[in-house]
Amino acid sequence: MEKFCFGVDVGGTTVKIGLFTESGELKDKWEIVTRKEEGGSLILSDIADSLKQKLSEKKIKNENIYGIGIGIPGPITAEGTVLKCVNLGWGIFNVAEEVEKLTGISNVKVGNDANVAALGEMWKGGGKGHKNIVMLTLGTGVGGGIIIDGNILTGSKGAAGEVGHITVNYDEEDTCNCGKRGCLEQFASATGIVKEAKRLLLISDKSSKLRELQYLSAKSIFDAAKEGDELANELVNQLAKYLGIAASHIAAVVDPEAFVIGGGVSKAGEILTTRIKENYEKNVMFALKNKEFKLAELGNDAGIYGCAKMVLK
Amino acid sequence: MEKFCFGVDVGGTTVKIGLFTESGELKDKWEIVTRKEEGGSLILSDIADSLKQKLSEKKIKNENIYGIGIGIPGPITAEGTVLKCVNLGWGIFNVAEEVEKLTGISNVKVGNDANVAALGEMWKGGGKGHKNIVMLTLGTGVGGGIIIDGNILTGSKGAAGEVGHITVNYDEEDTCNCGKRGCLEQFASATGIVKEAKRLLLISDKSSKLRELQYLSAKSIFDAAKEGDELANELVNQLAKYLGIAASHIAAVVDPEAFVIGGGVSKAGEILTTRIKENYEKNVMFALKNKEFKLAELGNDAGIYGCAKMVLK
Repeated sequence: MEKFCFGVDVGGTTVKIGLFTESGELKDKWEIVTRKEEGGSLILSDIADSLKQKLSEKKIKNENIYGIGIGIPGPITAEGTVLKCVNLGWGIFNVAEEVEKLTGISNVKVGNDANVAALGEMWKGGGKGHKNIVMLTLGTGVGGGIIIDGNILTGSKGAAGEVGHITVNYDEEDTCNCGKRGCLEQFASATGIVKEAKRLLLISDKSSKLRELQYLSAKSIFDAAKEGDELANELVNQLAKYLGIAASHIAAVVDPEAFVIGGGVSKAGEILTTRIKENYEKNVMFALKNKEFKLAELGNDAGIYGCAKMVLK
Repeated sequence: MEKFCFGVDVGGTTVKIGLFTESGELKDKWEIVTRKEEGGSLILSDIADSLKQKLSEKKIKNENIYGIGIGIPGPITAEGTVLKCVNLGWGIFNVAEEVEKLTGISNVKVGNDANVAALGEMWKGGGKGHKNIVMLTLGTGVGGGIIIDGNILTGSKGAAGEVGHITVNYDEEDTCNCGKRGCLEQFASATGIVKEAKRLLLISDKSSKLRELQYLSAKSIFDAAKEGDELANELVNQLAKYLGIAASHIAAVVDPEAFVIGGGVSKAGEILTTRIKENYEKNVMFALKNKEFKLAELGNDAGIYGCAKMVLK
């Protein structure tokens, strides 16, 4: 009989779940609510119940399941221990062991959500064909995931790839969510570029379409830039400059084959990868030049793909 | 019979060679001249001859040799191919295959010299007890070696750990050897701090012991700093600031357990690690705080130890 595995991407609002074949075909996909009450203690049992229900519905036996891959929005050690996950209300415990107990399925692998998304993109998305990629996720914050020789780089305390908090501007006076100043996330996230737009609109007297908008968003800024709006282009260029600089630092450490740009901001398209690459090449030493910059392709499914990939190899 | 392996660290002037036991005891150590004439084509056969002579002298048979680890001053792929090594006059070829042919010994592993030094320090030096370290070598240039889970991080084109060319100062007008401006190497190498000293002595009118010296060196600057010389302390603090910043970038990528500081400049001692750590902690996000900063312990032998370690596991 054909064998399957589950990819389970736990977010702060919903848990995305996918049922995959061995070759990586997504057979079924659904979501459940993330119940954060009671310190998040219901989340894993809700997931276990949902998986059991799916198995019975599809008439799949436990022995035909390769395993379960789980993505968590927080730092995870290589052994599957979560080191506090504020978003879910979790303290420190071994998620893999807990899920094995609840489901009776062994081979449970746990990873950080940004890292599993990177693995998913390497496997079936923008990084396909590569084994060494860096994914930069530009959403509310800036996340990173690093894949070395086809495996997630976890780091000694699960904090490898926390590239959103690389300092890129030493003159910045506003404080980042992390408590530092001048982090990449303050300029290159969806939130960051909107904040920068508000700041620029105040201090500049240039005319701009952005002044006419009731509601500023990363999308509206990129749209205006594509239409030639000078001020919007300044903002996009600043975002690309800081991403290019951060990517040059990252490359000097891990020398990847390609960078994959994902997250909501990446819907802006080629304008983003082209401009980041320009700034990257300007800032990197000769031995690290000519890297690929690709857009992510899996959208919100990158996580479940990456989770599945963790247990398949 | 006891088994052995060779560690061979190829430098631009001499080749350092060590004969090690399985447990990492250095039984014998010697050097031969690096003959760079004829496009460096004599280097590997000279090494092979020297190894054969040692085996016959010690009455060790080939079958009692685990293998040969070789460090090369240039980028090396994970498969042991050197991608041009200007220092030795070499083009692109597979060093491992060549040495196997010349010696009749299989299991030849090849690594970049900065990377093997890092592996050596992890095994028997300043990084002992850790599996995830970053070594920063402050010599004529600034080199880096990154060890993940006990293995060298090579990178897709052998350029992982090229951290000396992370840009740390965007206002710098002088050009680095790599062609860029503002690289870490321009401020944190032995050459760099001396150049910075000359610049500072010209523009400052502060009194300083450094003005009385006929010959400025990294050592004389650190010595003066330890004696309280204000100008020398400015220079040491600048070096430590840029190393702290670069280390914070590196940590955001690989999240190591410890940084090990080696190379000639590291003879300055604790003043160096203390001040780099201060700057590191100031520049890094909370999840990456409290890393160890240790001095390298193996000096010029780090390379041969690391080479041996490559073939022993």
